[in-house]
Amino acid sequence: MTEFIEVPKGLDRVIVADTEIGDVRGDEGFYHYRQYSAVDLAERCSFEQVWYLMTHAALPTRDQLARFKTQVAPHRALTPLLRELLPHLKGATPLDGLRTALSAACAARPMRPVLDIDEAARADDALFACAVTPTILTALWRIGQGLEPLDPRDDLGYAANYLYMMTGTVPSDEAASAIEHYLILTVDHGFNASTFTARVIASTGADVGAALVGAIGALSGPLHGGAPARALDALDAIGGPDNIDGWIRGELEAGRRIMGFGHNVYKTEDPRSNHLKHVATGMGGDIVDFSKTVERRVVEILAEVKPGRKLYTNVEFYAGVVMELAGVPRPMFTPTFTTSRVVGWSANILEQARDSKIIRPRARYVGAPPPQPVPEGGFAD
Amino acid sequence: MTEFIEVPKGLDRVIVADTEIGDVRGDEGFYHYRQYSAVDLAERCSFEQVWYLMTHAALPTRDQLARFKTQVAPHRALTPLLRELLPHLKGATPLDGLRTALSAACAARPMRPVLDIDEAARADDALFACAVTPTILTALWRIGQGLEPLDPRDDLGYAANYLYMMTGTVPSDEAASAIEHYLILTVDHGFNASTFTARVIASTGADVGAALVGAIGALSGPLHGGAPARALDALDAIGGPDNIDGWIRGELEAGRRIMGFGHNVYKTEDPRSNHLKHVATGMGGDIVDFSKTVERRVVEILAEVKPGRKLYTNVEFYAGVVMELAGVPRPMFTPTFTTSRVVGWSANILEQARDSKIIRPRARYVGAPPPQPVPEGGFAD
Repeated sequence: MTEFIEVPKGLDRVIVADTEIGDVRGDEGFYHYRQYSAVDLAERCSFEQVWYLMTHAALPTRDQLARFKTQVAPHRALTPLLRELLPHLKGATPLDGLRTALSAACAARPMRPVLDIDEAARADDALFACAVTPTILTALWRIGQGLEPLDPRDDLGYAANYLYMMTGTVPSDEAASAIEHYLILTVDHGFNASTFTARVIASTGADVGAALVGAIGALSGPLHGGAPARALDALDAIGGPDNIDGWIRGELEAGRRIMGFGHNVYKTEDPRSNHLKHVATGMGGDIVDFSKTVERRVVEILAEVKPGRKLYTNVEFYAGVVMELAGVPRPMFTPTFTTSRVVGWSANILEQARDSKIIRPRARYVGAPPPQPVPEGGFAD
Repeated sequence: MTEFIEVPKGLDRVIVADTEIGDVRGDEGFYHYRQYSAVDLAERCSFEQVWYLMTHAALPTRDQLARFKTQVAPHRALTPLLRELLPHLKGATPLDGLRTALSAACAARPMRPVLDIDEAARADDALFACAVTPTILTALWRIGQGLEPLDPRDDLGYAANYLYMMTGTVPSDEAASAIEHYLILTVDHGFNASTFTARVIASTGADVGAALVGAIGALSGPLHGGAPARALDALDAIGGPDNIDGWIRGELEAGRRIMGFGHNVYKTEDPRSNHLKHVATGMGGDIVDFSKTVERRVVEILAEVKPGRKLYTNVEFYAGVVMELAGVPRPMFTPTFTTSRVVGWSANILEQARDSKIIRPRARYVGAPPPQPVPEGGFAD
């Protein structure tokens, strides 16, 4: 008889694969991509350098980076199909629009199953999808605002081009740098639900687009991390310094989660939050002071109301502040996150594709025992 | 410190959830939906009765079925968006086209996250997606053939309408019944990769469409079961009775898998194959005799060449024969499978949505140890 293995619900703490992409050490408040601290990478690298690292498992030389940018550039423009399709997706949420548009673009390329192509062809498919994602998202945003999509500008850095395609204005160096930091910090973060989705799909040998489209769907779920607008909405709901304590106590009494606080992997401070707080402080402004006060009071009041329960800000909290200061419209917060995470998903898909083992778990049947006779005619009456 | 749990790769034999939808008893060659044998359901029910059973956990009364059909009917027609979109997807594979079109249709509905809506609203979303799937697939097929899509016909049974929308001809009762049997037999089959994908996405609280679109992507992978055209291609490659033994021995010597044989869950005969062989026998024809001879010789030669290794036909083998006899064009074999499996995915999504636990496993980092210092400028040179 087949023997089965029971594991905790939600696969909590269950190790489902080996990876060389990175890790989150939740007990230490440390995470890394390949052999580098993600925070160190944010401080010293451009987004493209990290993108190259995720894809090729090493930082590029100057020549390699120049060639990489030459490969990326032609894929950033909207294809004719996307130009026709995007206006039809005007009413969709940004992630539903991206899911549909990227699905169409990958189908039209066309992409072949990862099982049927070599490493280089898979990496090309991933490069295409990652390169076109920011263009799709900013084009959908502008179409929704009644504006024309803008062509990408190869003279701008990654984040600067992204902000330009969204707003039509070349951003300040400070704003571009802040967003570049945010994007680098959010490229990858362990086997979260969207990354795992991408890997399950890739394990069937399906094409890179199929796996990315599934991951976008998972990311659109409210229980998935990464909705920095929620934390900022909370700051808005508080309104001003006089209302901080009352609002926090009200939320705790109502048993609601305080958005922007707590993470199910980190038992310590979230290193992403720490670094984004540092970035926000460099930018300055009333919202930075206000958010720091809210952070301090949440921690203090929680220590008083629920002693022993430590709660820290997660990536959402200061990510929202940074994006607001950089001029990203709030509905574009999660899409902005998606433009970096698509690179992490792709690295995971490429790694999974090197393995030919399909992911196929089991379930325990707990319903009424079969076989019951099917009534004549198949009706309940 | 967090303690981790190791499990076999691919989650083989790992029980990740409880379910009341059904089970596959691979050691017994038995599988069931709810409390009924799937084969019994195929013999006694219409597809819509089984669809109702999967969704509502009970067979319908006559009145309930009549109401259910009334709910389904208006959702089967192509929406105006789909009429505009589908011609743009002409060059895509059927599953890539369905992935894109269903994504667009669900986004336009719009669907809301399962976490934010009640059971009835979720079931409505699933009903919409399942109802429109056969229409999308047959429309894409006809557009690819240079033909106009056909409107669904409410006076026809489920399989008869499907065959009509594909071919433009009302099929014989025998052909419609054979396909209806096939569809019922393939509605669900445990936590295979596409079903698991749908559940991981639904576990984030994302909408029904997001989960279905991900599942379609997983199904498009060559390692996922359900490509009945491959088995028929093998029969073509053999050509005729004189070539059977030589072909089989050649494949075994080359170390290739014989398509249509073997399943990683069933250690016995596949009950789906048994029933479809019975259906094919009822239809008759040269191909049935030929396929039975091939089946017998594969088993006999394998017993001789690799004694002790039992190999049985899987669902692909006689599914291909049945679809060929029913007049389904070979490129539509996998799409036909998808029209039934979307109902099984939906039942799994609705069940998963009742649980608020996100599926988020872990991986073991096996790369170079961090943190290595990031070189100045972030370059390898």
